[in-house]
This record gives sequence, structure tokens and C-alpha cells, in this order.
Amino acid sequence: MTQNLALGIDIGGTNTAYGLVNRRGEILEKGSFSTKKHTQLEDYLSTFANTLLPIIEHHGIEKFSGIGIGAPNGNYHTGEILFAPNLPWKGRIPLSKFISEKCGLKTVLTNDANAAAIGEMTFGAAKGIQDFIMITLGTGVGSGVVVNGRLVYGHDGFAGELGHVIVHENGRLCGCERRGCLETYCSAGGVVETAKHLKPNYPDSILLKTDSENWTAKNIFDGALTGDDLALKVFDETAKTLGLALANAVAFSSPKKIILFGGLVNSGPILMTPLKTYFENNLLAIYKNKVELIPSALPENDAAILGASALAW
Amino acid sequence: MTQNLALGIDIGGTNTAYGLVNRRGEILEKGSFSTKKHTQLEDYLSTFANTLLPIIEHHGIEKFSGIGIGAPNGNYHTGEILFAPNLPWKGRIPLSKFISEKCGLKTVLTNDANAAAIGEMTFGAAKGIQDFIMITLGTGVGSGVVVNGRLVYGHDGFAGELGHVIVHENGRLCGCERRGCLETYCSAGGVVETAKHLKPNYPDSILLKTDSENWTAKNIFDGALTGDDLALKVFDETAKTLGLALANAVAFSSPKKIILFGGLVNSGPILMTPLKTYFENNLLAIYKNKVELIPSALPENDAAILGASALAW
Repeated sequence: MTQNLALGIDIGGTNTAYGLVNRRGEILEKGSFSTKKHTQLEDYLSTFANTLLPIIEHHGIEKFSGIGIGAPNGNYHTGEILFAPNLPWKGRIPLSKFISEKCGLKTVLTNDANAAAIGEMTFGAAKGIQDFIMITLGTGVGSGVVVNGRLVYGHDGFAGELGHVIVHENGRLCGCERRGCLETYCSAGGVVETAKHLKPNYPDSILLKTDSENWTAKNIFDGALTGDDLALKVFDETAKTLGLALANAVAFSSPKKIILFGGLVNSGPILMTPLKTYFENNLLAIYKNKVELIPSALPENDAAILGASALAW
Repeated sequence: MTQNLALGIDIGGTNTAYGLVNRRGEILEKGSFSTKKHTQLEDYLSTFANTLLPIIEHHGIEKFSGIGIGAPNGNYHTGEILFAPNLPWKGRIPLSKFISEKCGLKTVLTNDANAAAIGEMTFGAAKGIQDFIMITLGTGVGSGVVVNGRLVYGHDGFAGELGHVIVHENGRLCGCERRGCLETYCSAGGVVETAKHLKPNYPDSILLKTDSENWTAKNIFDGALTGDDLALKVFDETAKTLGLALANAVAFSSPKKIILFGGLVNSGPILMTPLKTYFENNLLAIYKNKVELIPSALPENDAAILGASALAW
């Protein structure tokens, strides 16, 4: 019997999304469960197995090639998650081994953004592109770097952590315990933090109708849609920091495209317009007007699920 | 007759070094001439040809495989030097073509730091290493990035310009017309600039016996050797900026080694000791104590000459 199915899993700091995928890259079934609520790893693994086992049993385990997982700080070489600042479980977690034991299928793990890059390369905006960078803007900021048509893992499997490039020395405290990481400015939480910093200058902002402790990135986006000055300034500041970091990344690998995905990218031109301006302004002359900065061509989450599933073939 | 000789050329902002190299990587003959003094490209090309043609004629042109050149902003794909801020000639220079016409030999060009990386990979501290970064600290700051055992050229041949990563927003004006590039702090000129900035705080420094307009990086180094506080502070500041930039580079490609070379590296522990401390302090936890930060194993300039010569085979 042909093994023509795989499970693709995208573990995010908030939710874990899964998809049943065939060899043509069609997602036949998908869903998600909470990551954050499972503070105990054992509980999370139980929910994981209880969600996926019925799908595996329904189709027949013999039809499955395996399970592919994208996770923050996931290591392709060892199958472990290591010291992921945005996950509830600390230290070194041999996730591939655990899931493989629970579900009875070969399980392959990589960085969540690397999985998204593989998805984009196989099915999305990076088809046929040899050199590109994938940036994921969500609970965290992740990246997958592709050079000469191959994902860059580095000598230890941990390459491509652009969310933890230090962009402002002695800046905001990051979950990784250092200061000034890109993630502290350009993740969903970073955007809210920027809004809180700027609010004293915007006493008339409609955002102030809500207690700032309850703000989300979505609130700021909704505010920006109404033309609120504070909300627009927040997107401008976010674009400024991200534009500089991406221009610096170009000096490294000179990609043909930078593909952005994740919740913040859904803000559309409110983020992308100022981002393109700051990005171009910060590029070294030899790179100007050569690098396409575009949103993912795949529906949200699908790139990561599809990429993760591709790991299993 | 076997073509068992090549010419390796290292074009720097100050001098152009050349070497006659055999297939075993032995430099049989070497020398240099001024780059800076030839403000007219045609004069430079004449000096170039007048220096190399006698060597080619002496050994017989039929014994030569070709000429390999490492140059700032040199493009492997097109054979051109483009907008190199540290060279006297501006715009787009089809150097490979010019040299090939003047010398009658196949000529291949790349970035000077890429050439050094190839030299280090073939004959030096990066033998057998799949993932490393070469950093050259001289008139400018250059880099060559190796991933999966291959030099990263990027989609247009210009990857690996870490000297033009912006490390301090709105910082010092760079030759590339942007502000805050690594090169403006960690090149020979950057070191002198830092000393000038800091001198008001060190009225007793022995450096002040010389007019600061005449300071060179070598003066600062000599001062540091005597324990002069200003000079030591300059190396500490240089190490701080470089340590952060290198830690950020690790988040990109997770190299096994970072290899430094060029004039400043000859400062030995005065630079390397604080550099290692700042570098480790700025690394994300998953990379700590895993990346070797070492000086080149090849005599100064030889890595670039050897690497450039390897391009010609």
C-alpha cells in the first residue's frame, strides 16, 4: 500500500495547528489546539496524541509516511526543542521521540520558520527560487534562510534565528533573557509594547478607550484601519525596525525574495507600505530595488503545515 | 604542457598584493603595489599589467591557468567591481575583462573577503569545515560566508557584505553613503575615529603626544601595548561593536567557526580577549560556547592571494 499521507504540525507559542496532507500538497483536513494552556509537557503530549490518533486510525496507519513538525527552536539534527522562549516548557525536549512513541509514526522536526520556508519553496511564492528568506511574524519572530536552494541549518541545526538578532542595544528584555532582539519589537507582543510606549504622546487616540493592559496587535491594527494616529505610528515604528533588520539580512545572503507571513502580515499595506520604504532606504546601493519583499502566497498557517508535512516524505 | 601556475591578486583599498601560486598552494613569488595612488583606473591597469606581465613572460604564458582576483564589491557572476566605497574608482568597473585583455589570461573575480574564505577553506583554519564566516578587518570590513561547504554568493553574486550591516542606527557616515555600518567602527579608520571621539576623556593619554589628525590604527595598538587607558578603551569599544555584529551573524548561519584576518587582528589578545567576551555575552543561549572565534591560520594577505589563485584553476 502506498504511503500517500502525512501529518504536518505547526507548533506556535499560542496554538498548535495540524493538517492531513497528501503528496500533491493538498490539505485534506486541518485543525488546531492550544499550546499555551498546556503548561505541563505531558498534558500537551496527551492532547497531541488524542487529537491525531483518531485521524491516523481513521485513514489507517499504513497509509502514513510520517509526521513532520515545525516548532520554535526545533532542531532538525537532534529532533529536540531547545530552550524555546515562547513555549511553556523549558530546557531540552526530545519532541520527535515522544511524538513518535505516542503516535507510532516516524516523526521529523525542524524550526517552525524553516518548515514555513520549505512549504513556500514547495508550494508557494518561492517555487524555483534558489535564494530567499522566510520571516514569520507571530507570537515570536522566526526565520528560515534558503541558500542555493537548500535550507541553511548551520553546523548544529540552529541557523536562521533572525528574531533574535539584537537590533537595539540595551533595548527591550526578550524571552531569551537578552535585550533588544528583533522579536521584542516586531512580534504581536512587541507591537503592543510599542503602542504602550507611545501612548503618552497620543492622548486622543481611540485605542485609549480600552485599558492598555488588554491591548492586542489586532486592536492596534483595527485602530490603524480607522486612521488613528497612535496606531499608525506603531506600525510605522514596527516597519522601521523590521526594515532595518531585513536590510541587514540582505547583506548576509543577498536573497531574491523576502517572504513574510504570520498574523502581522495580514495588516496588509498598513505594515507593508512603510516596511518597503524603510527596507529600501536601509539597503546598501548594490542591493537596492533588487529584492522582492512580499507576503506569503499561501493561506495563513498552511505554509508551515505544508512545509512540516514535506519533512515526513 | 601542464598549466600549473596561477596569479592570485588581493585588491585592497590601500595596496594590491599579488602572488604566483602553484597547484599545491605554495606562493612562489609575491609583492604589492599601491591601489590608492592610482586615482585614474587606466593608470592602475597599466601598473597592474607592468607588474604582472614580466612574471607571466618569465615563466611562459602557457604554464598559467589564469588570474584570480579578490576585490572589494567584486562580483563573481559578472566579473565587475561595483560602487566600491574604498576604491578610488567609482561606478561599475568590468575589471575581469580589462585584466584579461591586458594580460592575455582568463581572469576570475570575486569579493576580497570571499577570496580569503576560499583560501582559508583550501589551505587554512577552515579545512574540512562546512559552515564558517570569514571576516576581514582592514581599510574596510569584509566577509565571506560559507554554508554547506559552499561560498554564499546570493542571487546576484553580492552576498556577504557584513561590513555594511548597520550596527548603530544614525551612526557614523560610511563610504557607502549610509550611516552606522560596522565598517565605520571596526575598520582601521573606524578605530582611529573611535580614538578621536574618546580622547577628551583621556587628557593624560600618551597618544596625545601626536596630533590626532595623524593617528593610525597602528599608533592606537602601540599605545595599547604600553597599557595606555585611551588606547585600551578604543580596543574595548571596537570589540564591543564587533562582538555584537558577529553574535548577530551567528543567528543567521550558525557557523562552526568565525575566522578573522587583516591588520587589526595582528593586535592579538588586545582585540581578541574583549572580543570573545562581548561575542559570547551577546550570543543566544543555543549558540553559546559552540562557535570558535579565531584568527586566520595563514600569514597576513596569503589567504586572500591563495583564495584568489584558487579561482583560476
